[in-house]
Amino acid sequence: MAPSLAARVAREYGSPAVMIDLDVVARNIRRLQDACDDAGLANRPHIKTHKSTHLATMQRAAGASGITCQKLGEAEVFAKAGFDDILISYNILGPDKIGRLGRLLETAAVVVAADNPTVVAGLPEAGAIAGRPLGVVVECDTGRARAGVETPQEAVALARDIASREGLRFDGLLLYAPEDRIAETQAFLDTVLEGLAAHGLSARIVSTGGTPNLKNIGRIRGATEHRSGTSIFNDRMMMACGVASLEDCALHVVATVVSRAGPERGILDSGSKTLTSDTGGGLDGFGLIREYPQARIAKFAEEHGFLDLSRSPEKPAVGEVVSIVPNHVCVVVNMHDRLVAVRADQIVGEIPVAARGKIT
Amino acid sequence: MAPSLAARVAREYGSPAVMIDLDVVARNIRRLQDACDDAGLANRPHIKTHKSTHLATMQRAAGASGITCQKLGEAEVFAKAGFDDILISYNILGPDKIGRLGRLLETAAVVVAADNPTVVAGLPEAGAIAGRPLGVVVECDTGRARAGVETPQEAVALARDIASREGLRFDGLLLYAPEDRIAETQAFLDTVLEGLAAHGLSARIVSTGGTPNLKNIGRIRGATEHRSGTSIFNDRMMMACGVASLEDCALHVVATVVSRAGPERGILDSGSKTLTSDTGGGLDGFGLIREYPQARIAKFAEEHGFLDLSRSPEKPAVGEVVSIVPNHVCVVVNMHDRLVAVRADQIVGEIPVAARGKIT
Repeated sequence: MAPSLAARVAREYGSPAVMIDLDVVARNIRRLQDACDDAGLANRPHIKTHKSTHLATMQRAAGASGITCQKLGEAEVFAKAGFDDILISYNILGPDKIGRLGRLLETAAVVVAADNPTVVAGLPEAGAIAGRPLGVVVECDTGRARAGVETPQEAVALARDIASREGLRFDGLLLYAPEDRIAETQAFLDTVLEGLAAHGLSARIVSTGGTPNLKNIGRIRGATEHRSGTSIFNDRMMMACGVASLEDCALHVVATVVSRAGPERGILDSGSKTLTSDTGGGLDGFGLIREYPQARIAKFAEEHGFLDLSRSPEKPAVGEVVSIVPNHVCVVVNMHDRLVAVRADQIVGEIPVAARGKIT
Repeated sequence: MAPSLAARVAREYGSPAVMIDLDVVARNIRRLQDACDDAGLANRPHIKTHKSTHLATMQRAAGASGITCQKLGEAEVFAKAGFDDILISYNILGPDKIGRLGRLLETAAVVVAADNPTVVAGLPEAGAIAGRPLGVVVECDTGRARAGVETPQEAVALARDIASREGLRFDGLLLYAPEDRIAETQAFLDTVLEGLAAHGLSARIVSTGGTPNLKNIGRIRGATEHRSGTSIFNDRMMMACGVASLEDCALHVVATVVSRAGPERGILDSGSKTLTSDTGGGLDGFGLIREYPQARIAKFAEEHGFLDLSRSPEKPAVGEVVSIVPNHVCVVVNMHDRLVAVRADQIVGEIPVAARGKIT
């Protein structure tokens, strides 16, 4: 039998490795773009998922209007690669970061999020450094209890604060609605937009977010753009929430069975250092093995994936190479310096994870 | 008030950052060496925790007889830095890895672990490449259900297999006893040693492992060396299992509060991409904040640490920098390219995590 594609990837690049199917990637990029187009929204994919300038270039070619980053360090990598329309959906704080933000703003159109006056008070210095105003959107929390102001009144107050400051430009609102709170989010947004209008302000950007929210896309009136990250690869979480099927999963971790010490168990050479301990919000096990779907990746050490094979009628032998759909692709990509690209059962080459590990 | 050391680290290196106190590191290294010396065991620290040739050099200077690596890629980094006595406590498999292992063996004394005949059958080629025999220890499982043969009979059979092969040298046994199964491990070991003797074989190396097993050190008769990784830094797991106190924790993640959207909650700029989702075997929360010990790091997004401040009488403001003892230091170190070294309230400089992300 000819070696499987996964086995060839393992042989050529070492095991474990991260393999992405470019045909599935292209289809996923197209689907996101179409969903945004159909809803009349700009598509601003979140690069935290792939951290690759190559893949972001594919997204731009398909019609994306800009990119979203979560960290300044990510934005710096992408600006250097020529991306000039960047939303950083995060509170940026501290003199070192403000200095970097100012220098970034010299080279790219940058908009940042803010959810409190302390952050807003630090931002004008970035505009001063760049010699042009920094765009700021107010992050609004509509039930996720994450970052974001909790009330429309706070949102309006913060917008006025932003608009009042030299060096800043109030640009609008950042939303990340819980998937089951679209009506509440709409009510919040309507109240904010009214409040803004009462003060002569308007929201050029109303940015919605999340791959799970693709099932709600177009349902928030007043939205102007959508941020989706995970949809480029998909994973078990996206399958669990109903926005992707197995065929939509473009990324697999290629791993090797290195031990079968007991008849009902085995060890993969991929542990938490490769697949991460992310449970995907409570999924069963740490990944889906395509070749042995009833095998369970039951727990991890850093370099050991503990396989429970008791429910699997077929059991892999030592040396066998398997392909795993991770619980959560974003965190997996961050563990790796490169992705191995394949297409139509052939290895195409490697794609560097250019913005891996940019924590600041 | 003068800024705290953590705040100075954040300002100079960006937030989040990983800070290690070299005085505590030196004390921890000394304590491990003393424990091994007192037990009459060679000290073979596991570098998976720090992945730093600089810190391994400190361990060697204190008396370590060699190092333990978990991955071939780690061993390659350390061999290049001049470490010439390396145990790889892992099944090495596949033609690419065997080739690399052979080239490594040309430059360093390398011993690998094996727990099955498939792995053993692949190893002689490495000895052939190097032109000298590869040392192999048999990994034995005495209750952890990880890698390792499950019975003394299998251990003896595998040892005989190794000893029979050109290009290999049977070197002994690798143990990683559960902390509460020392008597059972002793019985297993005694049976294996008897079985080996009956075939004219002896174990030059009987390697025990684990930082939690430092409380058992010296209790396994016949052991020749001990492998401990985590003790160089310690963490909440080691505190929970009683082998370290808070003062023994040398590594802190420096993080900044970026949002306080609700009165009882906040957001840290450190999420799973910085601290990892490792629960430390079921600890409460994802780290201990030194300045706010009753604050709970309740959950994570990749770049968000969700703080539950409801039980904390004092609550941090936006912009405040805090120091966090992680649940599990080994996995945290792997997320970072550098460690910021401090000593006596001063920043000393940065130490590269030279073997970060070596997954193959």
